[in-house]
Amino acid sequence: MPKVKFSPSGTSVTAQPGTALLDCARDAGVEIVAPCGGKGTCGKCIVRITTGDVDSDSLGKLSRADIADGYVLACKTKLATDDIVVEVPERDERQGGKFTEAAEDSSLVRQELFPKNWQFDPLAIKWCVQVAEPQMEDGMSDIDRLTRALQKEWGRVEFTYPLSVVREVAAAVRDQDGMVTVTMIMAPGNYHVIGIEAGSRADKHYGIAIDIGTTTVAVQIVYLPTAEPVAAVTDYNDQVTCGLDVISRINYAAKPERLEELRERVLKTINKLIHQSTARLGIELGEICNAVVSGNTTMMHLLLGLNPEYIRLDPYTPTVLKTPYLTASEVGLDINPQSWVYISPCVGSYVGGDITAGILCTDLATDSEEINLFIDIGTNGEIVIGNRDFLMTCACSAGPAFEGGGIKYGMRATLGAIEKIDIDPESGRAEYQTVGGVKPKGICGSGIIALTAKLLLTGWLNAAGKLNREKASDLIKISGRQASYTIVPAADSEHGEDISISEIDFENIIRTKAAIYSACSLMLSQLELAFDDLSNIYIAGGFGRFLDLEMAITIGLIPDQPREKYKYIGNSSLTGTFMVLVSQEYRERQLEVAERMTYIDLGTDPAYMDQYTSAMFMPHTDMNLFPTVKAKLAQ
Amino acid sequence: MPKVKFSPSGTSVTAQPGTALLDCARDAGVEIVAPCGGKGTCGKCIVRITTGDVDSDSLGKLSRADIADGYVLACKTKLATDDIVVEVPERDERQGGKFTEAAEDSSLVRQELFPKNWQFDPLAIKWCVQVAEPQMEDGMSDIDRLTRALQKEWGRVEFTYPLSVVREVAAAVRDQDGMVTVTMIMAPGNYHVIGIEAGSRADKHYGIAIDIGTTTVAVQIVYLPTAEPVAAVTDYNDQVTCGLDVISRINYAAKPERLEELRERVLKTINKLIHQSTARLGIELGEICNAVVSGNTTMMHLLLGLNPEYIRLDPYTPTVLKTPYLTASEVGLDINPQSWVYISPCVGSYVGGDITAGILCTDLATDSEEINLFIDIGTNGEIVIGNRDFLMTCACSAGPAFEGGGIKYGMRATLGAIEKIDIDPESGRAEYQTVGGVKPKGICGSGIIALTAKLLLTGWLNAAGKLNREKASDLIKISGRQASYTIVPAADSEHGEDISISEIDFENIIRTKAAIYSACSLMLSQLELAFDDLSNIYIAGGFGRFLDLEMAITIGLIPDQPREKYKYIGNSSLTGTFMVLVSQEYRERQLEVAERMTYIDLGTDPAYMDQYTSAMFMPHTDMNLFPTVKAKLAQ
Repeated sequence: MPKVKFSPSGTSVTAQPGTALLDCARDAGVEIVAPCGGKGTCGKCIVRITTGDVDSDSLGKLSRADIADGYVLACKTKLATDDIVVEVPERDERQGGKFTEAAEDSSLVRQELFPKNWQFDPLAIKWCVQVAEPQMEDGMSDIDRLTRALQKEWGRVEFTYPLSVVREVAAAVRDQDGMVTVTMIMAPGNYHVIGIEAGSRADKHYGIAIDIGTTTVAVQIVYLPTAEPVAAVTDYNDQVTCGLDVISRINYAAKPERLEELRERVLKTINKLIHQSTARLGIELGEICNAVVSGNTTMMHLLLGLNPEYIRLDPYTPTVLKTPYLTASEVGLDINPQSWVYISPCVGSYVGGDITAGILCTDLATDSEEINLFIDIGTNGEIVIGNRDFLMTCACSAGPAFEGGGIKYGMRATLGAIEKIDIDPESGRAEYQTVGGVKPKGICGSGIIALTAKLLLTGWLNAAGKLNREKASDLIKISGRQASYTIVPAADSEHGEDISISEIDFENIIRTKAAIYSACSLMLSQLELAFDDLSNIYIAGGFGRFLDLEMAITIGLIPDQPREKYKYIGNSSLTGTFMVLVSQEYRERQLEVAERMTYIDLGTDPAYMDQYTSAMFMPHTDMNLFPTVKAKLAQ
Repeated sequence: MPKVKFSPSGTSVTAQPGTALLDCARDAGVEIVAPCGGKGTCGKCIVRITTGDVDSDSLGKLSRADIADGYVLACKTKLATDDIVVEVPERDERQGGKFTEAAEDSSLVRQELFPKNWQFDPLAIKWCVQVAEPQMEDGMSDIDRLTRALQKEWGRVEFTYPLSVVREVAAAVRDQDGMVTVTMIMAPGNYHVIGIEAGSRADKHYGIAIDIGTTTVAVQIVYLPTAEPVAAVTDYNDQVTCGLDVISRINYAAKPERLEELRERVLKTINKLIHQSTARLGIELGEICNAVVSGNTTMMHLLLGLNPEYIRLDPYTPTVLKTPYLTASEVGLDINPQSWVYISPCVGSYVGGDITAGILCTDLATDSEEINLFIDIGTNGEIVIGNRDFLMTCACSAGPAFEGGGIKYGMRATLGAIEKIDIDPESGRAEYQTVGGVKPKGICGSGIIALTAKLLLTGWLNAAGKLNREKASDLIKISGRQASYTIVPAADSEHGEDISISEIDFENIIRTKAAIYSACSLMLSQLELAFDDLSNIYIAGGFGRFLDLEMAITIGLIPDQPREKYKYIGNSSLTGTFMVLVSQEYRERQLEVAERMTYIDLGTDPAYMDQYTSAMFMPHTDMNLFPTVKAKLAQ
């Protein structure tokens, strides 16, 4: 079998002739980013064959000259019989952003957003009971005595026990004179005992809220007796190397073994975050007894190993919207294996449980008469408009730019991320502030928005996202037809290289903001409403601790509306997931909201492309839509 | 590490000094029967060390002369540092009976015993439905459409789906234009879908009834659409090498790894029987969708991996009597992994689900006013007396003699077993009939009872179980103080050796019959009743196709009552298990019977030993209790 050697890593593998080079790279542990999932459409998995012949069909994405130089698309290239050497260009290795580090993210615990009045009533509780001593000839087994002790406190509901718990009962009820702590899932009419321990252990009781984004996964550990979040960590979804957006992931999942690979990748991310937080807090994994998971419909299918193909195919039918209760061992979460895992209900193929969770943080989930708008800006953008009488929702494919994805030095809002920035109009030099006040490593969503807006306002960037080559500055570097702007010179950065942003990055940023803005305006026009009719505009997303609304309006991400209408609610999916974890009232409200929402498919509206194209300038082609920005730019 | 070589098998193992020889034998796959479970009390695991020194403490069970000759108890002997050679006497290898062959047993399908009127209503059903095509924007997932199709036929109950089924739904509903077959468990208020297949497959639908005895395991495959048993097979419980009765098994299970070993051994037996029958019938394992299991309380604990220790210790408290529903994958049965496994409810530590199942075949489970007696003769004997107003039950340790266990040429009622026998009074020669009419291999329960009775009636055996050495015959062989009787000479037997029965065997038979009889008479006297007060006497047990009542009365196994009172109902546990499998009505009745039964512990009654000792003759010390036998013996 031919041998494939990758440089500069030096790793090599052997494989059958006919094997795709992208698969060889994956087997060798060499990550080549292929946002389209290996369909040959994105043209990003470019590598160079320096030794040996291959079967390649890269024309269409690469020039004849490039092909003559040995460049190929890894996904469209198959091994022939030769041993080969493959050069993986460095730029490819980071093209998708720094999808690497897990980190504590304090911006995720936003208790100020929790509603004022709510009922603490988690699905899982831990309870201490005294089990009576066994008596000769009373005809009662250990389980019977335990059930009787529980019924004394909780009434004559049915208590059920999985085999793993039955196996622990005899020892537990005898260890400390009958004093035991049981963990129960309080399902209506049936209390399901998922754990038993000898002695008083009711204080060892945690739950977990999980938000699975296409790009970012966030995990919050909650101390259930007081509903207090004790840890919140995020990391990039390990699936990102298999495609940057949901459509590429669905394409990637076409083969059963790849569906399984995607399932394992997201579980790897979640379980890593669980292990890290519990180790730091000194919590045992078995002390986590309940989980609530939210995410878009595709992410939920991939988590559960469900073929997502029909989400992408007309008539766009997911396998499941309201997922039945599952156990942690079925799903693969590293917590008490008998824990129930509740999955936030989805609304349609492109509006998922992250939205039904997020909306719990807003007045859209109340009986308010005011018409409000909710915008969740993630790799997919989702929009909800409505009040107590109606709830309409739609989705658009925005891209991961504001989560640091697809931006060369983009990163999440973790230690060393530039989160605030200012530009000196004269020199063009950046003044910035990082998370944790340390040396900068990259730039997060809030920083990217502020940077783009400030460069625009100071004339270093134009409305089309091109840098001003005419201003004299060593901060603008030109390479061929592309220019880039140096945010932090190498000497000041954490990793000793320039932190910069390129015109390719600005193109991504503009595409993202155009998708969001045009989706909002199109949906309003379909409802015969205008932005002026809205009372509140909720902005959700993983930008970081704060979003500078003025700057978001300046680049045209969100409409130029009175600033007091805006409420930035951060990762509302995670906050809503937390609420569902600790309150049955919210779980019911979420189901009711999911039931009420009507999904609109914008893709079928011919006006969408026009709206999108008009939004491909900053702030917009029609400057009259952004009067305050127009005034500032005129200064 | 020292090496241990076993002869005559030639197998060898190495083990740490200090390892018990019995464990070495087990590791080497050399089976040494140790009915007491390795406690050093039964003195049956005698082997001979022919080379090398060991640490042995066999005094008390072996004479000094035997010890000088190298004989030791394998369980009380530990390796020193020497390599050793161990001779395993041939007699030990078969001492426990022929615990080897699995076989079809036609006597298990006793449809004539099924009650006349009952409702066919199995817990698991298979149902064909047409699922509507997906529609754009109807907000319905595949699962939603499936649920709607099911609700159309079954009403608005809740349908639940385990993840493994959810994973199959998308493909199944698209494969044959929406025609699917679902397998459902019809739990009250919640129909649990445990399987989905494309197309019409409702005819591929089987259930399984399993009876786990201490000695014998019986498995019946039932075609659920018509409630027709299609196979019934039995085998020895693979746990027998770890102890012959429940107490030895409980002792054996004292270490967690041995508890697990016992669990695996019984599962091995059950799954072997399942594989054999399904292969012969051409059934796929996944087509078996429901299981009901019955057995004594210890067997159920061992099957589920529950520590049985507290069953043996005062106050004799089992972990569980009414086991919650479990899945086949939890239990370890090789059928559809999502199948529910229902375990027949137990009454107490020594009266189990085999009795609550068996009693369904009798009038004791009806509203009859007549007082009836039910005797289940197995390795444990269990007795139930009562009518619609009361049900009392007790247990005694009988031993496996009537299942062929502990009898040198004993076997189950399978091909080649002598099941009927007659003795020529003059020559003492046996005339016999075997199962299948083939050459004899051994003798089953019904044959053992007939043989013993006939030898007694013809004067070849006395009331104490000693053979008549004074009669001149080459059929009586004397070796030391023990005599044996040749049933079949070598030339006529299947295996070319004599089939004989020894005075040790008769001792076992008398002990067994005495335990049963004395338990019945003691319980009656505790209730201030006599045998004459009984209307019906049901005899259950694995004797074979028929039990010669006259002969059973002759040896004093059962009381000398008018013959028309008797009903031999065979393996009533299996028949009752079948009834529970196919009818919810019987499942409910079984629960109600279990609730009504009062358990009496005979072991605490000082009169028990007296009763037992008086019954240690055939038919009894007090011949007036057996007037018809007395008359016959006087002839």
